[in-house]
Amino acid sequence: MSTIDRRDFLRVATVASLAATGAGATTLALSTSAEAQTTSPPAAAKGVTRTLAKYVVEAKYEDLPASVRKEGLRTLLNWVGVAVGGSHHETVDCAVAALSPFSGPPQASILGRKERFDIMNAAFINGVSSHIFDFDDTHLKTIIHPGGPVVSAILAFAEYHAVSGKDFLNALVLGVETECRIGNAVYPDHYDRGWHITGTAGVFGSAAATGKLLGLNEQQMIWALGLAASQPVGLRESFGSMNKSFNPGRAANNGMTAAILASKNYTSSNEMIEAKRGWANTISTKQDYREITEGLGTRYETLLNTYKPFACGIVLHPAIDAAIQLRNQYKITPEQVDHVDLRVNPLVLELTGKKTPNEGLEGKFSVYHAVAVAIVEGAAGEKQFSNRAVRDPVVVALRVRVIPIIDASIKPEQVELTIILKDGRKLHKRIEHAVGSTEVPMSDSALEAKFADLADGILPKAQIVRLMESCWEVEKLSSAAAVAKAAVQV
Amino acid sequence: MSTIDRRDFLRVATVASLAATGAGATTLALSTSAEAQTTSPPAAAKGVTRTLAKYVVEAKYEDLPASVRKEGLRTLLNWVGVAVGGSHHETVDCAVAALSPFSGPPQASILGRKERFDIMNAAFINGVSSHIFDFDDTHLKTIIHPGGPVVSAILAFAEYHAVSGKDFLNALVLGVETECRIGNAVYPDHYDRGWHITGTAGVFGSAAATGKLLGLNEQQMIWALGLAASQPVGLRESFGSMNKSFNPGRAANNGMTAAILASKNYTSSNEMIEAKRGWANTISTKQDYREITEGLGTRYETLLNTYKPFACGIVLHPAIDAAIQLRNQYKITPEQVDHVDLRVNPLVLELTGKKTPNEGLEGKFSVYHAVAVAIVEGAAGEKQFSNRAVRDPVVVALRVRVIPIIDASIKPEQVELTIILKDGRKLHKRIEHAVGSTEVPMSDSALEAKFADLADGILPKAQIVRLMESCWEVEKLSSAAAVAKAAVQV
Repeated sequence: MSTIDRRDFLRVATVASLAATGAGATTLALSTSAEAQTTSPPAAAKGVTRTLAKYVVEAKYEDLPASVRKEGLRTLLNWVGVAVGGSHHETVDCAVAALSPFSGPPQASILGRKERFDIMNAAFINGVSSHIFDFDDTHLKTIIHPGGPVVSAILAFAEYHAVSGKDFLNALVLGVETECRIGNAVYPDHYDRGWHITGTAGVFGSAAATGKLLGLNEQQMIWALGLAASQPVGLRESFGSMNKSFNPGRAANNGMTAAILASKNYTSSNEMIEAKRGWANTISTKQDYREITEGLGTRYETLLNTYKPFACGIVLHPAIDAAIQLRNQYKITPEQVDHVDLRVNPLVLELTGKKTPNEGLEGKFSVYHAVAVAIVEGAAGEKQFSNRAVRDPVVVALRVRVIPIIDASIKPEQVELTIILKDGRKLHKRIEHAVGSTEVPMSDSALEAKFADLADGILPKAQIVRLMESCWEVEKLSSAAAVAKAAVQV
Repeated sequence: MSTIDRRDFLRVATVASLAATGAGATTLALSTSAEAQTTSPPAAAKGVTRTLAKYVVEAKYEDLPASVRKEGLRTLLNWVGVAVGGSHHETVDCAVAALSPFSGPPQASILGRKERFDIMNAAFINGVSSHIFDFDDTHLKTIIHPGGPVVSAILAFAEYHAVSGKDFLNALVLGVETECRIGNAVYPDHYDRGWHITGTAGVFGSAAATGKLLGLNEQQMIWALGLAASQPVGLRESFGSMNKSFNPGRAANNGMTAAILASKNYTSSNEMIEAKRGWANTISTKQDYREITEGLGTRYETLLNTYKPFACGIVLHPAIDAAIQLRNQYKITPEQVDHVDLRVNPLVLELTGKKTPNEGLEGKFSVYHAVAVAIVEGAAGEKQFSNRAVRDPVVVALRVRVIPIIDASIKPEQVELTIILKDGRKLHKRIEHAVGSTEVPMSDSALEAKFADLADGILPKAQIVRLMESCWEVEKLSSAAAVAKAAVQV
C-alpha cells in the first residue's frame, strides 16, 4: 500500500488516538476538531437523549391516563396472541434448535411451547414468534410493530426479576413511547432508505422498557439508549424470508443487552441519538427531534397503536370487512351468491391480483380468495390463508365469481362491495375505514376472537381464556410473570 | 390520525402483505413492484453475496499462500495479546458482571481470566477485551480492526466444536478477507457517515469465519451473510466511552448468531449485500462491489493487516520510533539529554498537543510525554501511558525539554527528530514510515515483546511463552482450542 493521504491519515490518527474508555471530554474534543476538517455533518441538537432518558426514568404508572393504560393492555393481549400463534412455525423451531445449546439458565418461557431459555434468548425467540404472521400490532405513522421489541423483552425479564403488573404496564407504555417517538423522528426517510424500522427503532423501546424495570438512573438510562443506538437491526431486503421475523426478536435482545450492561455502569456517549455522528444523522436524512422531546407524558404514541383483524396486507382489509359485515347481517351462505362486484383502489390488484392461489400464503395476495373465504367462513385469520382454505372447493367455486373493478376514485382505505344473490337481491356495503384502522379500532371482543383463533390448537381452550384474563388484568397482578407462565404448554 | 396518504399506504400495504416466511419470489416481486413507485434507489448489482459465499465455502487451507498464512498467525498472536492485556480492565469486569447471570454452559474461555461462558457470550467479552486499549490490529485501508470480530468468534467456537489448527487459520483468513473486502466496498463514505466500520463490516467477518467452521453450504453461507447484514454494530459517536469496545465484541456475537441460525436453515435474502434495499445501499453512499468479488483467492487483504507497536494514536508513532531508535543506538540516558527538537506535521500538535498530562490517558494526547517516556523507558506500551509514567519525575523533567516544531512539509507518517545532548552532540533521525506501518511492519520479535508486555502481571511468564508458541504453532495443533486454554488464569 502506498503512502496514505491526509484524509485517511486523519481518520486513522483520530481513531487510533481514542482509547476505548475514560477518555471523556478531552478525547471527544480532539476527535471533533480533527474530523471537522474532513466533512461537515449537520449541526447537533442538544440534550435529546438526556431528555428522553429523564422522562423514562421518572414516569410513573400513576401518571398514565386511563386511555393509555387501556391501549397498553390491548397491545399486551394482541402481542401474547400473535406470539403464541407463531410459536410452532418452522421459523421458531429452527431458532429454538439453533440456540438451545448456548442458552443460559431456564429463566423465561417460550410462549406457546415448553422450552425455557435465559431471558435474552427467550426475548429473542418470543420476538420472532410474534412477527411470524405479520399479524402483530402496527403504529401506522411509522409502520413500527411496537409490541415485538418491547413486550418480548419485558415479559421475559419479569420472569427473572420480580415486576408488579402496574410496573410492567408502565414499562410497556414507556417502551412503546420511546421506539415510536424515535421512529417518528426519522420516518419516512429512514424507512425509505431500506431499514426495517421495527428493528432499528425497536431496540430503543426494548432498552428503555427493560431499563425502567431494572431501575436505571438517568445516566444509566442514557447509556442504555446509547448502547441501543449502537445495535440497529434489520433491512427491508430481508422481507419474504425468516430474517424478517428475526428483526423484532433481535431488537428485543439487543435492547435488553444494552439495559443490562448499563445497569452495571457500562458507559456510552451522552448524546448518541442526536450527536453529529450519532444515530439519527448516521441512519437517516431526516431528523425531527421534537418528535422525541415534545409532549412527553401528555402526547402518547401508544394511543395510535392498531391491531390487524385479518391475516393479510391491509390493502385487502376494506374488502374483507365489507364481505364479512354483509355475510353476517344477511346470514349469507355461499350457495346463495351469484357473484360479487367490488370497486377497489388500483393498489388492490397491483398487490393482490393473484387469481388462482394454490398455497395458503398465495391466498394473502389474492383479493379473489380473500373475499370468497370471508363470505364462506366469516373470518380472515391465519386459518383462512392456509393450504386447506385456498383449496376448499366451496371457496374456489366462489372466488371465480369475485369481480374486482379498479376505480381510482376509491381510496386505498375504502371499498364499494356488492354481493349479488341468485335471488336477484343486491347487498351493498361501502367501507370508509376498515376495522383495525385508527378510525375504526378492533373491539376488545374482536381482539379476543383473534387471540383465541391464533392460540387454538396450541393451548387448551380453558387456558386460552385464563391467559386472556391475565392480560386484561395484568395491573392487578403482583407479578407480571404470571402472564408468561399462563402462556406455555403444560 | 387522519387518512393516510398513498405513499404511506403503499408502505403499510406492502409491509403488511409480507408474511415473514416462505413468501419467496412471489412476495418479493410484489414488494418490488409496489416500492418502485415510491423511490428510485440505485440499480442492484448481481450475485455479490453469492460469489462471496461460494468463495468462503470452497476455500481451503491448502490454497493459502505462505505469506498469508504467516500474516494470519501474526494477526492471531497480536489479537491474543491484546485480549489478554485488556481482560482486567473495568470495562471487562463490568461486562462479565452484567452477563454472568444469563450465560449458558461454560463452553469457552475468557482470555486472561478464570470465568467461562457460553460461546456467544465468550465471543462478546473477548471481543471487548481485545479493543480496550485500541492497541489491536488495523487494516489501514478501512481502519477496520480485523481481529476483534473474527478471532473472538472462532476461538470461542473452537472450544465447543472440534477445529483443527489448519481449519482455524483458514477460517481466520476468510473472516478477515470477508470483513475487509466488504469494508473496502463502502469505505470511506460509510465511515464518514458515522459508522464504526469494525462493528458494521466486522459482523460479516464473524459470520463467514464461524460459518466456515460450521461447514455451512453455499446457501447457508448466503443466509449467514444476510443475517449478519441485518446486524451492523457501532457509531463513531461512542468513541471515548466503553461503547467503543462493545462494538467488535457485539460484532463477533452477532456474526456467530447469524452463522449458527443459518446452520439450522434459518433463511434470509439471497442478495442482502447488493440488493437495492440491501446493506451497501442502505448503509453507504459508495458501493464498489468489485472490492468484494474480484481477485478472491489471489488478492489477500490479510496481507495488509498492521499491528501497533505503541499504545497511542499513530500520529505519534514516527516520533516515538525515532526516539527509541536513537536511545537504543547511542544508549542514551535521560540525564545526558539537554533537549529534543522535532519537526512534525501540523496534525501532531493538533491531536497530541497536551503539554502537562496528569492522567495516564492524557499522556496519549501529549507528544511531549510520548517522546520523553520513549527516551526514558525505551518503549511506549500501555505501561508508558499509565498514571505512574506521566507522573514520573524523570519523565516530567524531560518532557518540558521536548520542543516540537510544526512543518507542513513533513508528512504525517514522517518525523525529523534531533536529540541534543549536554555534551553538545546532536543525534539525528528521520523517519519516513514508522514501525508498525505496512512499509515497516513490526517484526515477529517486536510482536512478541508487545504481547509479553501486555500479558505481564496477568499470566505467569512461562505461560506467556507457551501461549505465544501455541499461536505461532497453531497450524500444527489438532485442536485450536488449545490456544484459548493456554490463555486463561489457572
